[in-house]
Amino acid sequence: MQRIKYQAYIDKIQSPEKAALLIKNHHVLGVSGFTKAGDSKTVLPKVAERALHEELKLTVLSGASLGYDTDADLAKNGALYKRMPFQADPTLRKSINNHEVLYVDQHLGQTADMLQNIDTFKIDVAIIEALAITEEGYIIPTTSVGNSPIFAEMADKIIIEINGSFPKSLAGIHDIKLLKKQPNREIIPVLQSDTKIGDPYIKINPEKVVAIVFTEVPDSPAIISAPDEKTTAISGHILQFLDKEVAEGRLTESLLPLQAGIGKTANAILSGFKDSNFKNLTMYSEVLQDSTFELFDSGKLIFASASSITITESCAEKVFNDFDQYKDKLMLRPQNISNAAEVISRLGVIGINTAIEFDIYGNVNSTHISGTKMMNGIGGSGDFARNGYLSIFACPSISKEGKISHIVPMVSHTDHTEHDVDILVTEQGLADIRGLAPTERARLIIKNCVHPDYKDQLLDYFETAYALGGHTPHILQDTFSWHTQLKKHGTMKMNELASNHF
Amino acid sequence: MQRIKYQAYIDKIQSPEKAALLIKNHHVLGVSGFTKAGDSKTVLPKVAERALHEELKLTVLSGASLGYDTDADLAKNGALYKRMPFQADPTLRKSINNHEVLYVDQHLGQTADMLQNIDTFKIDVAIIEALAITEEGYIIPTTSVGNSPIFAEMADKIIIEINGSFPKSLAGIHDIKLLKKQPNREIIPVLQSDTKIGDPYIKINPEKVVAIVFTEVPDSPAIISAPDEKTTAISGHILQFLDKEVAEGRLTESLLPLQAGIGKTANAILSGFKDSNFKNLTMYSEVLQDSTFELFDSGKLIFASASSITITESCAEKVFNDFDQYKDKLMLRPQNISNAAEVISRLGVIGINTAIEFDIYGNVNSTHISGTKMMNGIGGSGDFARNGYLSIFACPSISKEGKISHIVPMVSHTDHTEHDVDILVTEQGLADIRGLAPTERARLIIKNCVHPDYKDQLLDYFETAYALGGHTPHILQDTFSWHTQLKKHGTMKMNELASNHF
Ligand SMILES: CC(C)(COP(=O)(O)OP(=O)(O)OC[C@H]1O[C@@H](n2cnc3c(N)ncnc32)[C@H](O)[C@@H]1OP(=O)(O)O)[C@@H](O)C(=O)NCCC(=O)NCCS
Ligand SMILES: CC(C)(COP(=O)(O)OP(=O)(O)OC[C@H]1O[C@@H](n2cnc3c(N)ncnc32)[C@H](O)[C@@H]1OP(=O)(O)O)[C@@H](O)C(=O)NCCC(=O)NCCS
Repeated sequence: MQRIKYQAYIDKIQSPEKAALLIKNHHVLGVSGFTKAGDSKTVLPKVAERALHEELKLTVLSGASLGYDTDADLAKNGALYKRMPFQADPTLRKSINNHEVLYVDQHLGQTADMLQNIDTFKIDVAIIEALAITEEGYIIPTTSVGNSPIFAEMADKIIIEINGSFPKSLAGIHDIKLLKKQPNREIIPVLQSDTKIGDPYIKINPEKVVAIVFTEVPDSPAIISAPDEKTTAISGHILQFLDKEVAEGRLTESLLPLQAGIGKTANAILSGFKDSNFKNLTMYSEVLQDSTFELFDSGKLIFASASSITITESCAEKVFNDFDQYKDKLMLRPQNISNAAEVISRLGVIGINTAIEFDIYGNVNSTHISGTKMMNGIGGSGDFARNGYLSIFACPSISKEGKISHIVPMVSHTDHTEHDVDILVTEQGLADIRGLAPTERARLIIKNCVHPDYKDQLLDYFETAYALGGHTPHILQDTFSWHTQLKKHGTMKMNELASNHF
Repeated sequence: MQRIKYQAYIDKIQSPEKAALLIKNHHVLGVSGFTKAGDSKTVLPKVAERALHEELKLTVLSGASLGYDTDADLAKNGALYKRMPFQADPTLRKSINNHEVLYVDQHLGQTADMLQNIDTFKIDVAIIEALAITEEGYIIPTTSVGNSPIFAEMADKIIIEINGSFPKSLAGIHDIKLLKKQPNREIIPVLQSDTKIGDPYIKINPEKVVAIVFTEVPDSPAIISAPDEKTTAISGHILQFLDKEVAEGRLTESLLPLQAGIGKTANAILSGFKDSNFKNLTMYSEVLQDSTFELFDSGKLIFASASSITITESCAEKVFNDFDQYKDKLMLRPQNISNAAEVISRLGVIGINTAIEFDIYGNVNSTHISGTKMMNGIGGSGDFARNGYLSIFACPSISKEGKISHIVPMVSHTDHTEHDVDILVTEQGLADIRGLAPTERARLIIKNCVHPDYKDQLLDYFETAYALGGHTPHILQDTFSWHTQLKKHGTMKMNELASNHF
């Protein structure tokens, strides 16, 4: 109760069950939550439960993926008509790929603009997790800001979920500003990762608040496997490359603000900076993972701006038990500002993201397994890759005991085009394709990034295609033969097939 | 001579032949010129001539395509090692597709950044067309700004070509500012199309000027075929769509700043605005074509910012004979500012570009015929599509007497991904795919945009793929069968094939 400084809300306190009843069939919901951080822990799960017994077909917009089993339960219980702009849940993924749920896979920096520009998604109810409520009735968010400010602005009704599990000292790390619709869009005056441009709370119209609920459930912890041989090698190649850029005077030892994608690879890469020669690093990113705090502790990193904090259980214990030591080094922003083209291009962010596969000409697939099945979504990778100073994509050269090569003749789905990709890296090595023509890129990528088991096979494809001519040589009838072979025969290796079959 | 206000340059006046001798084998050249406007009319052609008799392998960077036969002659005479960031010449295109010339097809807004960020292209000589020289020795450009400011800044030596064919009243329409490399990149404070932020000339170090030559040759005229039934229909669909946006309150009758791509389709679309209900239109574009001046004359357009003026002979006669009537309505900027992500997103530009083909999920191919052969290049289309308010792509539904459908199962090359495309339009109709999942997009695109001759065939593909499952249904072994059939049998029509063959 002491977390609510606005009296008029006291009357609105109710149980999550009751608050969940405010959601009606066909509603459009805007919910807080960004890669498991700062999501609704009680009301949205109760909504999912209701769908077990009654017809609920909801359109659910979030910041990014939700924590616990919320996305899974919403999907399993048939509560979802449409979901956007990101998810990362195995059950929901299955429903999407089975055509049970419509999914709009969107640049995370662009959802707020879309809501201002089209009328398709009139937000009926926003459900927003809060650390506390200010005297004006404004919302202080928790571990993510995401799209909450625009949801609160556009929603007819707002449900606030106050989470007592986070230390109050989180207050003050948020920097929130709503951008006006064009032609009145203002300059976003972020000049460095730590430039403050807004308020430490989400301004809302208190009249729209229809329910306040309480919870003590912490964020679902991130699960991150430890760096292994491959991810450590990838990290090493990137550090070596950046060392060279510094040595040759193209970057300083503080580099430029770093962005790192989600998952094990990105986390391992960033961890690697602990033992680097760089100093006074900064981040202008989307998600802060464990590695961010390791870098703070090692003294390498001096400031990190993002839209959420998504960390493991042990990291959370350390960070939230003594948050004051990190407080001045962190800032959480709305995702249309953490991912703004304007700021990313001005600051010259170095974006490091993971690919599902990439091709010999530098196109990257971040989203679709074999061109058809959605994995997670593009997330913010495109926001950073398109407009940053340097766009790095990493993945292992092979997986599944070598049955899959992650470098293929042509990506089966394109999320980042050849025009937007600068550096490709696997545990085998790194290819800097800036300023190269497609045929130059192909030779370099095959030489540096491809696993020895696939080198000849890929070179064969390239040379055969090259002989046919064309700026970007391809054998159109064979481009996806690696993917179709994998499906039919369980491996992309052609010679293995040959020896198996003859 | 009266066009040179800086005495020290007088000694440097020489013949184009002699100036051309300053170019050595393996040099990297940065040359003015953007879609035929403001290019070198004498020195670069003389360089091409030299290559007939001696070994010259040059890397040539420009703003965009060059005029007359310069690109053709450079290619034909073997003078090119590498060319970037854009071209649109049939002879050069052939050399690129035959692997005689390396070509880097680049977002036009990003070449300047690349030059600041990598050392691969140290500009040996910049060749820049000038209207006149200021008292400080600075360059006043002609009909384009393009990449000239960054070339002049980075070059060891500068050759200036003074073109007396343009009226002196062109002086004053340029707005030039060099952006600093990150982390010192400044805000680009353009708040409206007409915001002036720089100087009306290119500041250079006069010591770097090694030759001044004179020419009276005007720009090569644009050749634009008149609007026909198809382009008029496309224009009509776009106007109708925008009318609806205004009627429903999402846009005002001034819309937002317009960008229009090159060529007949874009020009016809823009011409259509003459007879629209919109008022006080503005442009924040890359190239101004005839249609821009028609819109000025009709009173619909009040201001246009771009990087070049590329108009037909008759339009040029009208415009340059009485330039004062347009002078205050125009501004030419460096292409990294006309195409800046920061400005395009802030102003909310409505980008209208032409596609070679698009697919049922909204991916667009702007560059490659059948996935391999380079046509022109991506130009600025990606700069606008990625960051604008609205990204519209247009093309005819069919061509070559119906043998080619421009809507295909999967584009054979991806320049603009599903994440970046809002509106697709052919003479058949328009599809607004904002906020739609892939399967929703496919049904709408097939219904609204596809030619009746291909509707069943495309629906067949989609329904068969849909039955296989997946967020983005595809039949990987068949995705490019339309393109391979076209190559083998001269048509994408499958039933025609069936009846021909059986
Ligand atoms: C691309 C991405 C899925 C990689 O994540 P990751 O944790 O490194 O990789 P994963 O191991 O989970 O997933 C890759 C899987 O796809 C499989 N895969 C890749 N190519 C495949 C193919 N052609 N056929 C079948 N499976 C394939 C891999 O084998 C692996 O499977 P596994 O999980 O069974 O081992 C993830 O980074 C992502 O979702 N990125 C997009 C969003 C983003 O970039 N956000 C950044 C800003 S936050
Ligand atoms: C896409 C682009 C080539 C279209 O230009 P256009 O003048 O409308 O179209 P064109 O008629 O010249 O070219 C299309 C040609 O490709 C052909 N084509 C398209 N798909 C084809 C296919 N699958 N197989 C064979 N040919 C195909 C068309 O039939 C047509 O051929 P034609 O010239 O013999 O009639 C042009 O707009 C462009 O280069 N765009 C990229 C750059 C850009 O967008 N810049 C904008 C910012 S300035």
